Amino acid sequence: MTLSPTPRSTIRRGRHHAATERAALHAVLDAALVCHLAVVVDGAPLVLPTGYGRDGDTLYLHGSTGARSLREAATGVPVCVAVTVLDGVVYARSAFDHSMNYRAAVVHGTAVPVTGPEAKLHGLRVLTEHLAPGSWDYARPPTPKEVAATSVLALDLAEASVKIRSGPPGDEDEDVAANERWAGVLPLRAAWGTPEPDPLLVGDWEVPPHVTARSRAPLG
Amino acid sequence: MTLSPTPRSTIRRGRHHAATERAALHAVLDAALVCHLAVVVDGAPLVLPTGYGRDGDTLYLHGSTGARSLREAATGVPVCVAVTVLDGVVYARSAFDHSMNYRAAVVHGTAVPVTGPEAKLHGLRVLTEHLAPGSWDYARPPTPKEVAATSVLALDLAEASVKIRSGPPGDEDEDVAANERWAGVLPLRAAWGTPEPDPLLVGDWEVPPHVTARSRAPLG
Repeated sequence: MTLSPTPRSTIRRGRHHAATERAALHAVLDAALVCHLAVVVDGAPLVLPTGYGRDGDTLYLHGSTGARSLREAATGVPVCVAVTVLDGVVYARSAFDHSMNYRAAVVHGTAVPVTGPEAKLHGLRVLTEHLAPGSWDYARPPTPKEVAATSVLALDLAEASVKIRSGPPGDEDEDVAANERWAGVLPLRAAWGTPEPDPLLVGDWEVPPHVTARSRAPLG
Repeated sequence: MTLSPTPRSTIRRGRHHAATERAALHAVLDAALVCHLAVVVDGAPLVLPTGYGRDGDTLYLHGSTGARSLREAATGVPVCVAVTVLDGVVYARSAFDHSMNYRAAVVHGTAVPVTGPEAKLHGLRVLTEHLAPGSWDYARPPTPKEVAATSVLALDLAEASVKIRSGPPGDEDEDVAANERWAGVLPLRAAWGTPEPDPLLVGDWEVPPHVTARSRAPLG
């Protein structure tokens, strides 16, 4: 299945970077932990880092019921969500051709509040499992009061674009031919550290398998 | 010097996370490589990953003259810029208290196109040195044509907020007392990989010191 570009989701610059496959969109969304959610408030843009999770072609957005951007987004106004994964710094021979390798997804649409108890629990499971795979079954489940205090929005992925830059610098032919300067890519990766147990734990605890497994797996 | 919160840059949620020192703002901005720039286009928000660099209390934004968000931002409309650094996933005893450790900066303002040749070159230097320290002096300098093809905007950091979450989970007292589940933080770090030379380099090349030094230094 391919993406269906609309005028505003059509990549205007660097069309050769536009990935049209829906699988590429899903892959970018699954590779990051936080999105940037933008709404319009009093005519001005507001963009805030926001938790999310994906289920099929639905993006769930998540936060406190008091968070301004989520409150605004829940009123049926247009939203824009960007997810960006950085893969490296591109050192070109020229200052002008310096760049970054990245995978970026941008989604336009209208977010819908998820309100039914079962639908909301499903959204919270998707959000929790995106943030911390295995935690939904391991952790103490949310109480009705906690569910009520959490705002879950659903955003359809119908209108979305993906842009990916990878590979070596795109220097001018003359700069390459001159061969006077080094050029290349300095890769950038996200890496897990060693799990840090909560000091309030009492007694001997082993880090549970869903956390250790993640800490040993590559990310992004 | 402290930040001067205005109504829209005042942290509404989690005031205990609000860092009021300007140094904290600078530190967050200096720790990341890409910002998310939001503008309003036809009444709807548009947010895109955008290169930036900081000089004092000026944030330079950077991109192709054709990039939609930069073109809109250059017309004197309000913009919002978010910079987010993720530090870890917070595994709480309860699903509800799962969270992330992060450092986030949000800037509101009006971006001003940098147009004078000297001012623009200065902005490009700041931008290049943020992306790739040492590259401005090492790389082939931009030609007048390249300078003209690059859009540089300046955004004052007067209206900005910083929010930081760090440390262990904030579980409910009952969940802590029950001591039935592991809780802690899985740290997340950005790490440089090994420099990948451009295959188009001819002959033997050593990776230049400004690149190797960076690849060995911690990031963020």
